[in-house]
Amino acid sequence: MKQIVLRAYPQGAPRAEDFAVETLAIPEPSAGEVLLKTYWLSLDPLIRFALDEQRLTGRAQVRPGEVVYGGAVSRVEASNAAGWTVGDWVEGRIGWREYAAIDPQLVPLRKLDCQAAPPSAALGLLGMPGQTAHACMIEIGRVKAGETVVISAAAGAVGSIAGQIGKILGARVIGIAGGEAKCRAVEALGFDACVDYKSPDFPQKLKAHCDGGIDVYIENVGGPVTDAVLPLLKYQARMPVCGFIAYYGIGLEGPGPDRLPGFMRTIMSKGLEVRGFGGALTAGPEALEDLAGWYREGRIKLTEAVVEGLEQAPAAFAGIFSGNSHVGKLVVRVADDQ
Amino acid sequence: MKQIVLRAYPQGAPRAEDFAVETLAIPEPSAGEVLLKTYWLSLDPLIRFALDEQRLTGRAQVRPGEVVYGGAVSRVEASNAAGWTVGDWVEGRIGWREYAAIDPQLVPLRKLDCQAAPPSAALGLLGMPGQTAHACMIEIGRVKAGETVVISAAAGAVGSIAGQIGKILGARVIGIAGGEAKCRAVEALGFDACVDYKSPDFPQKLKAHCDGGIDVYIENVGGPVTDAVLPLLKYQARMPVCGFIAYYGIGLEGPGPDRLPGFMRTIMSKGLEVRGFGGALTAGPEALEDLAGWYREGRIKLTEAVVEGLEQAPAAFAGIFSGNSHVGKLVVRVADDQ
Repeated sequence: MKQIVLRAYPQGAPRAEDFAVETLAIPEPSAGEVLLKTYWLSLDPLIRFALDEQRLTGRAQVRPGEVVYGGAVSRVEASNAAGWTVGDWVEGRIGWREYAAIDPQLVPLRKLDCQAAPPSAALGLLGMPGQTAHACMIEIGRVKAGETVVISAAAGAVGSIAGQIGKILGARVIGIAGGEAKCRAVEALGFDACVDYKSPDFPQKLKAHCDGGIDVYIENVGGPVTDAVLPLLKYQARMPVCGFIAYYGIGLEGPGPDRLPGFMRTIMSKGLEVRGFGGALTAGPEALEDLAGWYREGRIKLTEAVVEGLEQAPAAFAGIFSGNSHVGKLVVRVADDQ
Repeated sequence: MKQIVLRAYPQGAPRAEDFAVETLAIPEPSAGEVLLKTYWLSLDPLIRFALDEQRLTGRAQVRPGEVVYGGAVSRVEASNAAGWTVGDWVEGRIGWREYAAIDPQLVPLRKLDCQAAPPSAALGLLGMPGQTAHACMIEIGRVKAGETVVISAAAGAVGSIAGQIGKILGARVIGIAGGEAKCRAVEALGFDACVDYKSPDFPQKLKAHCDGGIDVYIENVGGPVTDAVLPLLKYQARMPVCGFIAYYGIGLEGPGPDRLPGFMRTIMSKGLEVRGFGGALTAGPEALEDLAGWYREGRIKLTEAVVEGLEQAPAAFAGIFSGNSHVGKLVVRVADDQ
């Protein structure tokens, strides 16, 4: 079997060379363990946090030589653990490897209903990105019919779902994405419009689409995109913070100038509500039920970009940080689930 | 009569030399105007925003040669305006001058009930600082009994009121102020404790007082004080932004490094709710009724520091930004109201 380990802590944006492929024997499950075969890996910007040399939050940490942390969909191949049966589909933080022997009492596994949706959906629409989008739009954003919602990284896993939820809620939804092709793909999901942040007159174009002001801004990126959004926010606008990919890998401080004073001034003078989704979200299981229902009813699309083969994971993960061209949830097909 | 004008835009922290005293004739009120005599001036950190060369928010702007903007309590000396009578006490944005001829249709004036509280209270407890403290603790902070609330600039106009509201709400209230004398004065207002941010082991001392974590942090300062607070915030803590005096006069960008990435990471990973009080607060008049009631019942103290004479206003205003030693609302007695 193959697995992917961290070779060296990435400096800034990760590169494929920061990772290495190893070949080793398939493990034997001990008492209380299951042997899992990986079918799908989740490539998620948040994995970047686990690759910091300095541990800045309570999250998992990967050291050089260790298997890269990340979500996966697997099938139970052998079981020495009560309650787990060969053939069960599960989702959990299995890491970037073809097989794993796991004690389900130590690594939480979620059993999947693969009748309702294909297995890989558990990494996107019916998993963490879907829950995040749900929390940011409903619990934190409190998006109402008729409001104008702007979503950055609209082609990403969270953004593409958030926009579709916005349309279900009756809002006017404007996406922001990089490149005309991505923008058209985002509009095909039902967004009212999508603006290309690479366009030289991006701030003007965004303004033209948000003439009456923005009620809710779903923050996924930070940086110049956010700079263009802030002046358009209404008084007391809501800004759920789902991510800020421009700052991943920067640690707690980036190169100057210090932009915190301007952000605080905007929060204060506009009475903004800026809120993260960390910690225990009350919307967890209810969110998955909502999402599964909307998917069943055909009101929300499962949008995936598939990378073929475990060995492609490092390059595809690095691509997330260099503005790659995928739309929807980025997954790696490690084995064929058909 | 005398008035104080801006001599030059302050660079960073304001200095007394940025202002000049002028002597001129008392104006004659035109048709529709009232002649106001100033008794009390409000010295407020927010005035700093009006003194920026570059206008960054929708607030008032003062150019060199113009009278400095600011709240005042005045008495009507002559009236050519329907509804306004000689002897009426009013509060409004009159500016730093001994007399003013004002059209109440252009400059909003609030009539004061000087039986309920001394006239100067309209600039502190029963004015904008009181409303701000009320909004930050009740509407935005949603402080509940038993919660731990930390208040920066606890000796300031807003902080000193916010802490007293916190005790009325049944919370544990920890203040942060500069210097042992100020801290003891804050504790005399009923705060459970007050920690000196000038102490070399300030972060450790603060942590010792907030062992179970902080539910609500009332942000008045920014900078290193905030850096010490953020790691102590609980998941999903609330952070009402009432001010951030460390950044006033900096404009939108300060000297590097850029601290925004770390702030956004904390918001996201802790699920913080950061919210300003700008824009239309629903709590406006109700807040003043609450505050007047608590004052009447002796549950909240009117805490003022009085500077004598209009000509002292520039130096006292500059002192706000260099960590002066006053406790409570800073006001200037321009004329004796007894």
